Order: sequence, then structure tokens, then C-alpha cells
Amino acid sequence: MTLPPSLRWTGDHLELLDQRRLPEEVSFLKLHQWRDVAEAIATMAVRGAPAIGVAAAWGVVLAAQANEDLDLAVSVLKSSRPTAVNLGWALDRIKASPAAQEPVDPQGLAAVAAALEADDRARTQTLVDHGVGLLASGSRVLHHCHTGAIATAGVGTALGVIAAGHARGVVRHAWLDETRPRLQGAALSAWELGCLGVPCTVIVDGASGLLMRRQEVDAVLVGCDRVAANGDVANKVGTYNLALVARAHGIPFYVCAPGSSMDRSTSDGDAITIEERPQEEITQHRGQRLAAPGAAAWNPAFDITPAHLVTALITEFGVIRPPYRDALQALPLDRQP
Amino acid sequence: MTLPPSLRWTGDHLELLDQRRLPEEVSFLKLHQWRDVAEAIATMAVRGAPAIGVAAAWGVVLAAQANEDLDLAVSVLKSSRPTAVNLGWALDRIKASPAAQEPVDPQGLAAVAAALEADDRARTQTLVDHGVGLLASGSRVLHHCHTGAIATAGVGTALGVIAAGHARGVVRHAWLDETRPRLQGAALSAWELGCLGVPCTVIVDGASGLLMRRQEVDAVLVGCDRVAANGDVANKVGTYNLALVARAHGIPFYVCAPGSSMDRSTSDGDAITIEERPQEEITQHRGQRLAAPGAAAWNPAFDITPAHLVTALITEFGVIRPPYRDALQALPLDRQP
Repeated sequence: MTLPPSLRWTGDHLELLDQRRLPEEVSFLKLHQWRDVAEAIATMAVRGAPAIGVAAAWGVVLAAQANEDLDLAVSVLKSSRPTAVNLGWALDRIKASPAAQEPVDPQGLAAVAAALEADDRARTQTLVDHGVGLLASGSRVLHHCHTGAIATAGVGTALGVIAAGHARGVVRHAWLDETRPRLQGAALSAWELGCLGVPCTVIVDGASGLLMRRQEVDAVLVGCDRVAANGDVANKVGTYNLALVARAHGIPFYVCAPGSSMDRSTSDGDAITIEERPQEEITQHRGQRLAAPGAAAWNPAFDITPAHLVTALITEFGVIRPPYRDALQALPLDRQP
Repeated sequence: MTLPPSLRWTGDHLELLDQRRLPEEVSFLKLHQWRDVAEAIATMAVRGAPAIGVAAAWGVVLAAQANEDLDLAVSVLKSSRPTAVNLGWALDRIKASPAAQEPVDPQGLAAVAAALEADDRARTQTLVDHGVGLLASGSRVLHHCHTGAIATAGVGTALGVIAAGHARGVVRHAWLDETRPRLQGAALSAWELGCLGVPCTVIVDGASGLLMRRQEVDAVLVGCDRVAANGDVANKVGTYNLALVARAHGIPFYVCAPGSSMDRSTSDGDAITIEERPQEEITQHRGQRLAAPGAAAWNPAFDITPAHLVTALITEFGVIRPPYRDALQALPLDRQP
């Protein structure tokens, strides 16, 4: 079975895979207005930092087609999710293109968005190749959240490494953190790996320590939403705990970080804004209460993993080892890989 | 609002608070057969190692009343949950009592069960007093799973310390790990603390690291299902991860362990059997699928926290600091505290 694309441009509007309906149903939202794209990002119909960036770029094309104020569209799209930096990266690029200057050229903007999409495909494929090269043959890999093909416009990041690693006979088994509260690991990652025939097992996020104690894990692979200038990583909540547990067991902790996730203008993780989402994501599930009536919850969507816990950053430019600051500063982020 | 008891003996049969229906409904199962008690333990109608032990003791009384084979009843009750040692502790005590020898004396056995229940009340109260004494004024305490009054025949263990600590002006706030997969923290602990007016906030299990990084936690308090001779602790899955995260932040990690949880015949944590429960506890919630169709899950109910991560054991005999082996060996486990 093959995977559907995360999005596709029809020449007239954007079709966006509705990740909220997965894995039960593969359906596409038809988005004709840029505000619909902002809404789809905010409500997590599209998830995964690279896919969000490309979707937002197509949102700008929709704004141009309708002859709407591009500055407004860019500004609202940029604020639709606060933590991932790819969003701003993609929007800055499309906004800076000649086609975005007056008189605005919708066709030209569509070409820029298509190039960003193709760029993401190329970058994720190169990143995945570097990642597979890091793993020992027969590896059992633990993964957090969802970082597969549908989280990008290409082959995914960390989950892409696992899928390609299995196809190339390197990865033996994948352990999937279910990833509370949204359960992207249990729902999306297990679905993608199932489609691709990769043997995998879901665990609750708290079981990784026992699993490592039993020597069932050879490496941890995660994605990221933002890498600060010093190598600190913002990623789905629970990543930091997992990194600490991996370190305690001497298990390598690899972060897959496309150049579009890198934010050299943010000095370290403490300067990254952590999105806090509605408490109902924790206290309810599809309208059923999970928590005691009246119970309050705190729901940060991301956390910060300090650079010293990251064994290596896997990028489309190659594998980066600590110390990170100079190596990140030297990356040719504005060039094609 | 006051809390209902975890169980009550009517003089004829056992009424057992059905924890599976909490917090929506406070209802009691009426158990007339010892096999019903074994079933209630296995299906987690009663949860919490101390409460399970006392319930099992009343199961033996029911067997005696019905003139059934006590050895069989003890053996089946003992195997109804494999990890908590209190179960075996309570059953061994009632089986060794004169009333359990031929001719069996049901009235005498009821007196033994009632004494075990009163003993649990006294021990948990003493334990809680020792625990409160450990906390600095204004403490914000993080808790995993559920260890409240209804998990015991008395005032609870770790959650009892939090409740009493709040009543005495020592505990300022409780952070509650929701505790996947059964969500005992979100459902039961939040319900108990809500009933008692203790300010609390539920978090996903993976958010404890971020919370500690932000210096929002002064101490971690958990219960346990078994303490091995060297101080290794078996407790709800996720406890080990939490202990590693607390250690990384230099935050004290306290384990509340009544004497009935201590198993000096097991040399260390690796010798403790970890119960593995059905994968549907992870992949489904009340009949709704949470994971991708066909996804497999691994569901260990407990994990092992090595003694070196435990700052202190809080017992009814006082607070025990490392090294644990000699201190545990010296405890007068067969005497009243």
C-alpha cells in the first residue's frame, strides 16, 4: 500500500490531506481561501512542521489569486501555529520572491510554492539517506510523535529514516511512543508504518524506560519543530523526557532537523515560545471525558531538549555532531542541498 | 465533600467501591463469593496495592462462610494480580491465623480481616504523617498514578501525603501525571483531590520534564507495588521515566511504601514479575479505537525504578534513606508500627 500525499495543488485550489480523520479515513479538504489554510493549520488538519510550511505557501498563492492583501495573509498564516519555524521560513521566502511584489503575480507565486514543495521533497530524501547511514544493521528504533511522509511534502524525517531503513534491511523493528495527548504515534505513525509494512509496536510514553532497561532499543529518532542556534531542540511534548531516559541508558538520541527547522536567530531553547493548547485535548477524547469532572489540565504542545542530550542532528546537509553552535552557523541554509 | 471507603464489610458480604465507574459514579459491588473478589481484583474494580490486600482477606472470609476450600481460594486470589506484594502478604497472614486451621472459624477469620483493615488504616496514617514532615512549606508536588484513600483501607499513601500536606498548609499545589494507559491520575487522583479541595493540575506523562525545567516542581511523590530487598521499586509504568527526569533536575523523588509493600525475599527489581496487560488498554478507549487499525501495542502495567534514583522511602516506620538493604532488613515488618 502506498501513502497519500500530504497536499496537492490542483492549479486552482489546495487539496489538503485531513490528518484529523486518519487513520479511519483518507480524505482531502478542498481549500479555496487563504483563511481556510490558516484554519486548517491552527486546527491541526495538517501537522508536521515541513508540511505546515508548504501548506502556508499555497495559502499565499490563494490570497494572490483572490487579489487579497498579501501582508495580512502572511501575518495571519504565520501566527496560525507559534512553535514550528518552518512556517515563518516558507512564508518569508514566498513573500520575498519577485512574484510577491506589486503588481503581484499569482502564477509566479504558484511556481515559488511548487518549488518550495519540490525543495522539501529533495531535502527530506537527502536527510533520510544520511539518517539511514547512521544506524547499525538490525537496529530497533524508538520514535516519538509523527514525522512521516504526510508530515512533510516528501518522505518524512525521523519516520522516513525508519521506513527507508527497514526497506534497506537496516531497521529491524520500530517502537512507537503513542504521544499524548493527540496520539500521533499510535494513530499516524502506526498507520504509516503499517501501510509500508514496517514491523512496529505502540507503547505508552511512560514505558520507554522499561523498554531500554530491557535492552530492546538501539537508537531513538525524533523530528523537531525548531532548532535554536546552540542546538537546543523544540519538539512534541515528551521528547525531553525521552532524551533524558535515552541518555541514562547510553542510547543514541538523534534529532532529524531539515534546514527549514533551524532558527539561528534564536540563541537557545529558553527563547522559544511553547504553544499551550486547550486543556480539553487532555481531559476529553472525542467528547468523552477522560479526567474527573472539573479537573484542570496544563497542555504545552512542545518541550525543549537541551543540546547536550542530542547525540547528533540529522540534516539534509549531513550529520552534525556537537558542539552545535559553530556547525549550525556554517550551514548553507539558503542553498539547495 | 468526603470520600467513600474503598470497601466495607456488612457482616455478611463485602461491598467494594467500583473504581472503574469513578469518577462518574460512586457505586459499590456486592460480593458474596470469593471468586467474585478475585474477579474484582483481576478486572481492576479495586486498585491500589493496600486495598487489594484487604479485599483479598475478605475474600478468604467469604470462602470460609461458604465452607469452601481455603487453600484453593487463597491460591486463586493470590494470582489475581501478579505484581503487588501486599496481596500475598495479607493472604499469608490470614491463612496463618488460628481461625484458618481446621475446623475453620469464619467469625474468627472476619476478625482477622477486620484487624488487617484497621492495621492498614493505622499504617497509612502514620506513613502520611512521616511524609508530610519531609516536605518544605509551600511545596509543589508531582504525583504519578493513583495512591489515594480509595487505593487503601485508610488515608492513602503518596496522595494521602499530598492531601494531608495541603490540609496542614505545607503543600501548595499538586501536579498529576494522567498516567497512561488507564488514566488513574486524571480520573481518580484528580477526583480525590477535587473532593478534598486540594488545588491540582493534570499533565500528560511526557510533560514532567518541561515542568521541572521551569522550576514548577519541588518534590515527586509516588506509591509502589513492591519494594525489593535492595530498595528497587516496582510501580505503575512511567514511574521509572519520572524518577530519571527528577534526578536530572535534582528534585527529590520520594516513594511511599507501607511495610506491606516490602518484599525482602526478592533480591532486586529485575527479579520482580512485571504484569503485562491487554494491548487494547492502549489501542482503545471505551470501545473507540485510539491507534491505527491493526496496530500492535506492548502494555507492561509496571516498571522498575532502581534504588539509586529513590531519594527516600516513606514508610509507617519512618523515613528510610539509602543505602536501603540493611535498613529494610532491620524493619520490624511483623510488628504493628
